[in-house]
Amino acid sequence: MKKTGSFLTGLVCPKCGKKYDSRRIQHLCECGSPLLAEYDLKKARAEWKKESVSGRKPDLWRYRELLPVEYEENIVTAGEGMTPLIPLPLLGEKLDVPNLFLKDEGIIPTGTFKARGAAVGVSKAKELGVQTIAMPTNGNAGAAWALYGKRAGFRSVIVMPEDAAKITRNECLAAGADIYLVKGLISDAGKIVARSIARNGWYDASTLKEPYRIEGKKTMGFEIAEQFGWEVPDVILYPTGGGVGIIGIYKALKELQEIGWIGEKLPKLVSVQAEGCAPIVKAFREGKGESEYFTDSRTVAFGINVPKALGDFLVLKAIYETKGCAVDVSDEKILEGVHRLADTEGIFVCPEGGALYAAVARLREEGFIQKDDKVVMLNTGAGIKYPDTIEPNFPYLELDATI
Amino acid sequence: MKKTGSFLTGLVCPKCGKKYDSRRIQHLCECGSPLLAEYDLKKARAEWKKESVSGRKPDLWRYRELLPVEYEENIVTAGEGMTPLIPLPLLGEKLDVPNLFLKDEGIIPTGTFKARGAAVGVSKAKELGVQTIAMPTNGNAGAAWALYGKRAGFRSVIVMPEDAAKITRNECLAAGADIYLVKGLISDAGKIVARSIARNGWYDASTLKEPYRIEGKKTMGFEIAEQFGWEVPDVILYPTGGGVGIIGIYKALKELQEIGWIGEKLPKLVSVQAEGCAPIVKAFREGKGESEYFTDSRTVAFGINVPKALGDFLVLKAIYETKGCAVDVSDEKILEGVHRLADTEGIFVCPEGGALYAAVARLREEGFIQKDDKVVMLNTGAGIKYPDTIEPNFPYLELDATI
Repeated sequence: MKKTGSFLTGLVCPKCGKKYDSRRIQHLCECGSPLLAEYDLKKARAEWKKESVSGRKPDLWRYRELLPVEYEENIVTAGEGMTPLIPLPLLGEKLDVPNLFLKDEGIIPTGTFKARGAAVGVSKAKELGVQTIAMPTNGNAGAAWALYGKRAGFRSVIVMPEDAAKITRNECLAAGADIYLVKGLISDAGKIVARSIARNGWYDASTLKEPYRIEGKKTMGFEIAEQFGWEVPDVILYPTGGGVGIIGIYKALKELQEIGWIGEKLPKLVSVQAEGCAPIVKAFREGKGESEYFTDSRTVAFGINVPKALGDFLVLKAIYETKGCAVDVSDEKILEGVHRLADTEGIFVCPEGGALYAAVARLREEGFIQKDDKVVMLNTGAGIKYPDTIEPNFPYLELDATI
Repeated sequence: MKKTGSFLTGLVCPKCGKKYDSRRIQHLCECGSPLLAEYDLKKARAEWKKESVSGRKPDLWRYRELLPVEYEENIVTAGEGMTPLIPLPLLGEKLDVPNLFLKDEGIIPTGTFKARGAAVGVSKAKELGVQTIAMPTNGNAGAAWALYGKRAGFRSVIVMPEDAAKITRNECLAAGADIYLVKGLISDAGKIVARSIARNGWYDASTLKEPYRIEGKKTMGFEIAEQFGWEVPDVILYPTGGGVGIIGIYKALKELQEIGWIGEKLPKLVSVQAEGCAPIVKAFREGKGESEYFTDSRTVAFGINVPKALGDFLVLKAIYETKGCAVDVSDEKILEGVHRLADTEGIFVCPEGGALYAAVARLREEGFIQKDDKVVMLNTGAGIKYPDTIEPNFPYLELDATI
């Protein structure tokens, strides 16, 4: 069995500091907090050079030394990662931010950034001997875990609100998952999953209830740094639901600092939420370290409809420590963003990505974003998974017509 | 203006040999044949080394020396290319082809391989001063050209059969294209476009009527060779409609031979078509060099419903000269293939990609594929663009349920 060269040493609770053995299945800390993977970063600093990465395959396993999988045979991959960093000069001109970029997570298996968490989460679960995973989902995470789970030979039990995007349901079904719908919210699905796990002893793959999804997501941070030539941009905007991505990007950048691949500067991390579900924005405005449950949440951007995230304190920490901020955007502006990205730059993004457009505009107006800043919008998924964001309105031609 | 280093010398007719100037807009040859781009391959052999490619960005512009764009400022890109080559060990075991791979063209902007042709075609059109493009489409090509066209600042006029995949229509609309539907086939759309081009003087972006789309598609051949360490596999299976991809892959491999990056061996190229639209298969069985119009064509794999391809003679040449073959597959087997790829390997492909499954099975049984062959299935697009290939059938749970 060939080793990956991972510098993983174990798991630690970011709240109470308790350590856990990463060679056994672990979920939350006794204190209720998610756990984070720890690496021997001193050793990594001494032994791992960034030059070694550049010739590797363009997927997220190029950073395997700081990923949690210990043996190569456990890596479950479909070529995910190294998504393009696309300059947006036309939109940048409109918004007076000439150095505007889109990190396009639509260009990845399953069409959303959930593939990163699933690839690494499923791989580590395989390493730990898991056979059945279970999770509630608003759609994309379930689809990604079902498909990667199938590559690993797992049985997947997925419970989804019936309002979840149709395409994601069909992906789960195609992958042969045991998929169930509920007439309710993801929180209702979560309760069913929790009871079923307690009964059957399945592996809980719910957001942040296993510690390795975040390790997959953090590779977005590694890639952004590598794509800017091992520097960092000034601002990264991230549509925030569960917040695993922003937590992961922050973790990645801190790790890169510790191994000496980037300098002291960190980008300002900006959480973008929908007005109809903005618990992080509310907590940020009030200067709090944790969020409160956001009642009656609703937004067209289904993936960021998370009224209370388990890792909210880690999201807020990432914002505060990078001098970032949190902003909310109306559903109308979210859909306008989808349209402006497509009809200005030819990039068709998901509604969550669309939310970033209005956020950049507002933060530039307010002066939070400076004209010369390098600004990255992190689009979390492909617009083709959300065809209904476009109002169909097509003229018909007769067969003998000439335009 | 920075030069790309392209070794382009001009255009040539593969039928009558007439040469054309690539610094001016060109469409078909006087004799009616599509034109092909030519490069100074002797100079490329002397001056361009494969080692120079490995450190470049993972997109198709890493091969810019053998692409037709002369100035970097004309490159219109959204990060397309270097799609993953995914091992399929589980399916390979089932089919007794242990070295089975999927080249997954779903992992690209717009979710299909049409992005390659659009990126290079639009870039060259921009270089030639084009402002308005027009084309008929069955969906994916139109979506790709509309979106890349928007990045180039073009106006796009797209005419599509009303039966084309809904998502692709919405992509065109999102990109601000002038999109029209017809109650007819792509051939009907083509007639409307031809009349409208004659009236308005627009750039004809129809399949093979401009010479550069094929240059984008050929990068699939470059990538497959690079991904196998500058060797070639034994067999490549390609779902064939217009056939631009197989023509392009063949052209790429011949160019790589001439510049000395690969040896004498070529992979057997296999055209896979639907039983309901199999003009290339019929011509191959009859040993002919051109196909006949396939009447009353129909198949669930809309992208390969092309009853008579303009480049049919080039497709057949690629098959004959590589000792390949052509096979047809029923619609039932096409959908079965989509399911088997998803529920065995966790890869959700388009129906065109699904067709390859039954083709591999049959060619292995017949002995055309040997057990130890390295076999590449070229999946042309993402399954998420075709959600209706999955029959929805979901059990509902009550809120107080336990599984």
